Amino acid sequence: MASKLFAVIAGAGTGTGRAVALRFSKTYPVVLMARRPESYQDTLSEITQAGGKAVGVSADVTDTKSMESAFHTIKTELPDFKLAAAVYNVSSGYMIKPFLELKPEDLDDSLSGSARGLFNFAQKTMPLLLDAVPQSDYSPTLLVTGATSSIRGSAKFGTLAAGMFARRALAQSLAREFHPQGVHIAHAIIDGIIDVPRTSGYTGKGDVEDWKLKPEAIAESYWHLHTQPRTAFTQELDMRPYVEKF
Amino acid sequence: MASKLFAVIAGAGTGTGRAVALRFSKTYPVVLMARRPESYQDTLSEITQAGGKAVGVSADVTDTKSMESAFHTIKTELPDFKLAAAVYNVSSGYMIKPFLELKPEDLDDSLSGSARGLFNFAQKTMPLLLDAVPQSDYSPTLLVTGATSSIRGSAKFGTLAAGMFARRALAQSLAREFHPQGVHIAHAIIDGIIDVPRTSGYTGKGDVEDWKLKPEAIAESYWHLHTQPRTAFTQELDMRPYVEKF
Amino acid sequence: MASKLFAVIAGAGTGTGRAVALRFSKTYPVVLMARRPESYQDTLSEITQAGGKAVGVSADVTDTKSMESAFHTIKTELPDFKLAAAVYNVSSGYMIKPFLELKPEDLDDSLSGSARGLFNFAQKTMPLLLDAVPQSDYSPTLLVTGATSSIRGSAKFGTLAAGMFARRALAQSLAREFHPQGVHIAHAIIDGIIDVPRTSGYTGKGDVEDWKLKPEAIAESYWHLHTQPRTAFTQELDMRPYVEKF
Amino acid sequence: MASKLFAVIAGAGTGTGRAVALRFSKTYPVVLMARRPESYQDTLSEITQAGGKAVGVSADVTDTKSMESAFHTIKTELPDFKLAAAVYNVSSGYMIKPFLELKPEDLDDSLSGSARGLFNFAQKTMPLLLDAVPQSDYSPTLLVTGATSSIRGSAKFGTLAAGMFARRALAQSLAREFHPQGVHIAHAIIDGIIDVPRTSGYTGKGDVEDWKLKPEAIAESYWHLHTQPRTAFTQELDMRPYVEKF
Repeated sequence: MASKLFAVIAGAGTGTGRAVALRFSKTYPVVLMARRPESYQDTLSEITQAGGKAVGVSADVTDTKSMESAFHTIKTELPDFKLAAAVYNVSSGYMIKPFLELKPEDLDDSLSGSARGLFNFAQKTMPLLLDAVPQSDYSPTLLVTGATSSIRGSAKFGTLAAGMFARRALAQSLAREFHPQGVHIAHAIIDGIIDVPRTSGYTGKGDVEDWKLKPEAIAESYWHLHTQPRTAFTQELDMRPYVEKF
Repeated sequence: MASKLFAVIAGAGTGTGRAVALRFSKTYPVVLMARRPESYQDTLSEITQAGGKAVGVSADVTDTKSMESAFHTIKTELPDFKLAAAVYNVSSGYMIKPFLELKPEDLDDSLSGSARGLFNFAQKTMPLLLDAVPQSDYSPTLLVTGATSSIRGSAKFGTLAAGMFARRALAQSLAREFHPQGVHIAHAIIDGIIDVPRTSGYTGKGDVEDWKLKPEAIAESYWHLHTQPRTAFTQELDMRPYVEKF
Repeated sequence: MASKLFAVIAGAGTGTGRAVALRFSKTYPVVLMARRPESYQDTLSEITQAGGKAVGVSADVTDTKSMESAFHTIKTELPDFKLAAAVYNVSSGYMIKPFLELKPEDLDDSLSGSARGLFNFAQKTMPLLLDAVPQSDYSPTLLVTGATSSIRGSAKFGTLAAGMFARRALAQSLAREFHPQGVHIAHAIIDGIIDVPRTSGYTGKGDVEDWKLKPEAIAESYWHLHTQPRTAFTQELDMRPYVEKF
Repeated sequence: MASKLFAVIAGAGTGTGRAVALRFSKTYPVVLMARRPESYQDTLSEITQAGGKAVGVSADVTDTKSMESAFHTIKTELPDFKLAAAVYNVSSGYMIKPFLELKPEDLDDSLSGSARGLFNFAQKTMPLLLDAVPQSDYSPTLLVTGATSSIRGSAKFGTLAAGMFARRALAQSLAREFHPQGVHIAHAIIDGIIDVPRTSGYTGKGDVEDWKLKPEAIAESYWHLHTQPRTAFTQELDMRPYVEKF
């Protein structure tokens, strides 16, 4: 592996973000990006204790100035490093409500976190990924986390779906523009409940084992996507627990 | 046909909006909504001269206050009328540019016109459509105009696709919530160039006749969608010229 | 309407086939095709009594010789008539069974009725439809009936889905080849239970009214598809009852 | 890794089949299945020389008797082995022709190789895969090779699409039935030209490097799919060269 490569994960809190950070930190220094340091502090310690290198950056992906500043910090912290992988794993806020009880702000929150944030993140990372194309063993990669709502609009989930459809549209458009330039863009449709502390009380499937997605399993597939050679890029895949109805 | 029903078309300028207004005005008084009166003035005259009834309302669908005021005006102009059909035909602004030349405002423009506008329009029209369910011969209908970019993200069309994917997500979510309550929501994927004054100089297909979508043909299918009984609602259909590659 | 045009409906028994035959017989003489005369005899009488013209032809769409003979009969019965519309509405046999209880014959039955039958029917009708292009007010049309299983493979419905996916593939391929030559090919995804004598005892939705698709509503949309001008062909649409989950 | 596990690859000739066999032979004895021994003989030698174990079985997947006999041979050759992975990589015969020049046999060839073959292969392998669920470190897996034509019907490729759509329908239906029982079924949409001797003269993209799919890259992703834990099964993914338009 060429030296001097790093990865950045936006939405590097618990769950998928944390697991992806840990997985990628086996090979690269990783930048953990989240709005508040509390979100990434534990993961940062875990990586450091495991002998990896991690840098925490507090930033709001929906705010271009915050992103400007964040990538300035990254450049200072990791001078001469090229960007091997960027992961967009930000959860948008959203409301599960009958449509007529929603406020315009509910839609805006979803569009901001799901689409505007990815837009800003891609604008900052794409030049760095392009710059890394000649140096990387693996094609520089932008990985985007999607969900069931990325391909299915549901009653009461309309604003979530609006944001996630838009996120998928951006990922697909970026793939069509940048694949030929050697940057790999993949979108993962995560279909099911993720096994994180927040969902520990969920009882969806009774006594069935393993009915929730393990973040480590998702992270392993993200790593695989990153290592795909340019002759066989995956642009989209789904992932769901074996017992999940679909 | 029950008396005292009306239709409202947002984006009632030239092209599809004008043709839909003319078609629906054969049966209902129609409200023509556009940001500027110049956009709907000619269509209004056409309808009036043909013996129909039309009301012009200047409003910005992306602005909730403007929509509040617009629907207040409509109530004043058409007291005691129920809403039979609402058509969302607003074009979002968008830029055809390499991703790295885009500005965050380009994304916002697309999301605003495509998704936020529909959200606001649906919040104002859905209560009226629900209220009309018992009175209408045809199921009250919300028709939403989509495009190729509603289902396909393309290089340089990423912001357009983001908005149109989001619009489709909202339309689909609304259908899943309100179909069981008797309001019909349909999304039309218009795949091709529309034959309007603005596209008169396009020379895409050489001497081939009829290679552009006629707005009147689209309008006729919109009318058909409106008249579908509730035992057989179409939620989505495509329309394209016979020579259009797809 | 130009004189000397006719329509042919394969699978013209009860339900959609019968309703489409009745609807199209308002404008054209219709050929009712089914394996056994019992299937179309009542519809034939209905059309005749309503002042329309109908011809019954017993044929097996999965058998090329039978089709050869059927179209020879049609030519004899309706000399000098051009083909305005062909409707493929044949139900394939299929088994709802766990996969490991299925026999290869179950798959063959589904592929035969769903794909091979459409193939044979299209091979006989397409030359006639092409021949009618210059004479028709409406673009000559091939309408193909699909189902939920056309776009979704389900546990225990695998063989049904195999056939219906294949049918959709053929319809889509035919559209891409023959649209530019002026023949319109549309595929309708009928998503729900159809209200026919055979389903009269179904109790899926309790006391809810209109929870099944009315064949007459489907037929009306088929007629609309037939009348779409070539500037705005619909290639695919769905239809489902307002209370159907999707 | 538990001992006594094997893999079987149908369509184990050159290209994807050969590469998948080589990849899986690093972990499992592999059964190479093809109609003629010439197809798998070289791959068998390669595996043996690399220190792996391979068994060649001549069989026609479209013929149930041949499959019966093939799996009897496998049982004899590998007594006490459980089936860890089955790969269906059979190419159907197909014609690229205008629809009206096709023969019914052309459709049958495509349906046979694409759908009937998978049906027969799954009927023989699924009981073995189910039987291996408790013993395997990785979930027993059925991998199915698809193509662009699995999701897109094209002019002149109608019969190919009919078969490949049907194949995808079967794979999806099997996933919905057997995922909850612990067998993983994944369908790969291979979108592009594969770099095999047969395509060495193709000049699609001029001097562009790596414009064809490398079979080894596909095989690596197949192996990854096989290793996904049951909390995060991928049911479908695409793979295409970075310069492939899509």
